[in-house]
Amino acid sequence: MAVGNLDLPVMNPVKGVRIGIAEAAIRYKNRRDLTLFELAEGATVSAVFTRNSYCAAPVLLCREHLKAATPRYLLINTGNANAGTGTVGMDNARATCVELAKLAGVHPQEILPFSTGVIGEHLPVERLSAALPAALAALSANAWADAASGIMTTDTRPKGASEKFEHDGITITVTGISKGAGMIRPNMATMLAYVATDAAVTQAVLDALLQSSVNQSFNRITIDGDTSTNDSCVLIASAAAGNAPITSASGVLFEKLEAALHRVFARLAQLIVRDGEGATKFMTVRVEEGADTEECCDVAYSIAHSPLVKTAFFASDPNWGRIVAAIGNAGLKALDVSRVRVYLNDTCIVDNGGRAPAYTEEQGAAVMKQEEITIRVCLGRGQAQDTVYTCDFSYDYVKINADYRS
Amino acid sequence: MAVGNLDLPVMNPVKGVRIGIAEAAIRYKNRRDLTLFELAEGATVSAVFTRNSYCAAPVLLCREHLKAATPRYLLINTGNANAGTGTVGMDNARATCVELAKLAGVHPQEILPFSTGVIGEHLPVERLSAALPAALAALSANAWADAASGIMTTDTRPKGASEKFEHDGITITVTGISKGAGMIRPNMATMLAYVATDAAVTQAVLDALLQSSVNQSFNRITIDGDTSTNDSCVLIASAAAGNAPITSASGVLFEKLEAALHRVFARLAQLIVRDGEGATKFMTVRVEEGADTEECCDVAYSIAHSPLVKTAFFASDPNWGRIVAAIGNAGLKALDVSRVRVYLNDTCIVDNGGRAPAYTEEQGAAVMKQEEITIRVCLGRGQAQDTVYTCDFSYDYVKINADYRS
Repeated sequence: MAVGNLDLPVMNPVKGVRIGIAEAAIRYKNRRDLTLFELAEGATVSAVFTRNSYCAAPVLLCREHLKAATPRYLLINTGNANAGTGTVGMDNARATCVELAKLAGVHPQEILPFSTGVIGEHLPVERLSAALPAALAALSANAWADAASGIMTTDTRPKGASEKFEHDGITITVTGISKGAGMIRPNMATMLAYVATDAAVTQAVLDALLQSSVNQSFNRITIDGDTSTNDSCVLIASAAAGNAPITSASGVLFEKLEAALHRVFARLAQLIVRDGEGATKFMTVRVEEGADTEECCDVAYSIAHSPLVKTAFFASDPNWGRIVAAIGNAGLKALDVSRVRVYLNDTCIVDNGGRAPAYTEEQGAAVMKQEEITIRVCLGRGQAQDTVYTCDFSYDYVKINADYRS
Repeated sequence: MAVGNLDLPVMNPVKGVRIGIAEAAIRYKNRRDLTLFELAEGATVSAVFTRNSYCAAPVLLCREHLKAATPRYLLINTGNANAGTGTVGMDNARATCVELAKLAGVHPQEILPFSTGVIGEHLPVERLSAALPAALAALSANAWADAASGIMTTDTRPKGASEKFEHDGITITVTGISKGAGMIRPNMATMLAYVATDAAVTQAVLDALLQSSVNQSFNRITIDGDTSTNDSCVLIASAAAGNAPITSASGVLFEKLEAALHRVFARLAQLIVRDGEGATKFMTVRVEEGADTEECCDVAYSIAHSPLVKTAFFASDPNWGRIVAAIGNAGLKALDVSRVRVYLNDTCIVDNGGRAPAYTEEQGAAVMKQEEITIRVCLGRGQAQDTVYTCDFSYDYVKINADYRS
């Protein structure tokens, strides 16, 4: 039921980054459930994590390790989220890092662990550790597509994006993968994303690039409004391309890299929505003419989270009453509804506090037939704008999240 | 699919309040879609309305009339919400008040209009006005049960509650009705509630009583998180019982009346959840040991709004991972998850950041078989508590809200 073209593009290798995949039988046998990233010495790494108070043990340990050292390895397992596992979960996450550190000849703090899968069960540390030599032996620069499959849980498709550009005779590559499809399945959770470039970038600039990239991508998507306990997003700059390090947020190379990262992050985030649980429509909710971006975001999320709007889109029903009710529900102070206009793609459906005079149900029905629809709201309060991406709400969402035992 | 016993109790008449019902063919023929309340002179009236910025024309007009005069009539129609109708909608709402004022010999400002039904279509003023004489002729003290049916739209059951108590040899009655079942049907909206007592109560005390009653009833329920454009709740004190007026928020009579109102409001609000669209389970979400009631409420709503929790309850799945994820998602600062306990009815399912050691899936499954379930969360941060009521999220919710055209 994925919406649009989700095919994996050519996944360009990123110099300084190797990937190894192995089978650890964490939850299922014969499944490549262990993915290892090896980063060249000199790489910089930036990461953001879930804001959920019940964050998983690996998230807590990642934060600790990032403060202490620069990562050399990322260790990702599926099948078990190591969340809701208390102190045992922390011990288990540490144990996997210690084991890999021994084999790879690095310090445990140079390893970032990530887990996705069942909440509340303990990580099978022995099985995971037993698969580490195979993952290390498999390390290769050409395994991005395998990694995109390796980190999947209930995603229906592997998700990836990749770009290259030239600067002063040097080729810079940006390649990334993501996973997630809602809070996914019984006890399954997590959005994960890993993006690497071979550009050399200082830590502060990399942190800023990650923040701006995430703000217009992973922080602007919603499937069901639920934030998982394990969400993690990592940006790696391996410094292997040979450029003079980017030390400030300016200059042609910075701008080219920022643009490429924004495109790759946007694609990876939108792929998650396109593969959303039960999704039949991909909806872009764009709010313009706000007093500030915060209120644009509030209105966009109020629409994108409304079950009534989402079920109407599933039914291909241009139900403008539900859209205006969601706008009115966003908590904006002193909103003058007579100034608000709402468009479905290019068709104005709401104007002056009610149905637009020229609008016909036939126009609305014609837009609603499409798989990809933009809801555009003009608030008439200022110059700010923001955009959120979501999908519709179908029988299959309920089926996937409720019916698995029948 | 209503949950539990929703039968209408004996609806005791309230001295000083008469009700008349008529057929106006507003949307459908042969349907009693017009309900008129007549209030004795000397009654006090308090009302609260939707916070949705796109509030309907009758809501705007009610606010205006309440500032200018004490109401003598409430005029309620179903079939048309008169919302999203701009200035024409305001003119139409005014016209119905003018017409009734003429017939009843009062000032138009002494009338409060209420509408529920389709959004975005203009009120058929002529048909509504033509039915007013019949409604006036039908006025009776014994029509509360008819009124409960008269204000229904897609509710599957009429909703009412009624109590009597004695004080100093005087019988005081509290009777009320409500309607609503989600944002209900394509373009259908609105929660409405009307509660009357024959006690004499001054305006300031009545306002306070309405606020405290609403805060623990209609402000503590959610079906799908959407607030309609027309929500209205009215409390009438007709002063016909003969008690010395209640002029302050203290004393035995005040306390008896407050307790009766709280029970009647709680029942009327919970009836809406029990009749929620597609509901198969009635869920009480009680959050205790919070630093303040606001954070208890935030946690309760985070659970009650989570589609993942609601679909799990539909599936009778004691999915504690989703509950803790929703708690963690409520935005509480510095929540120490090791202190949080979660109970399903009396069974502790989460303790010390993870699954409670003694908890078994069998215990959870036994609770989940029931139609009425309490999720109790102890935050371990203080003494505050709050409770929210909701229902589960089923195929039928999607069906009702999406599938009506098929």
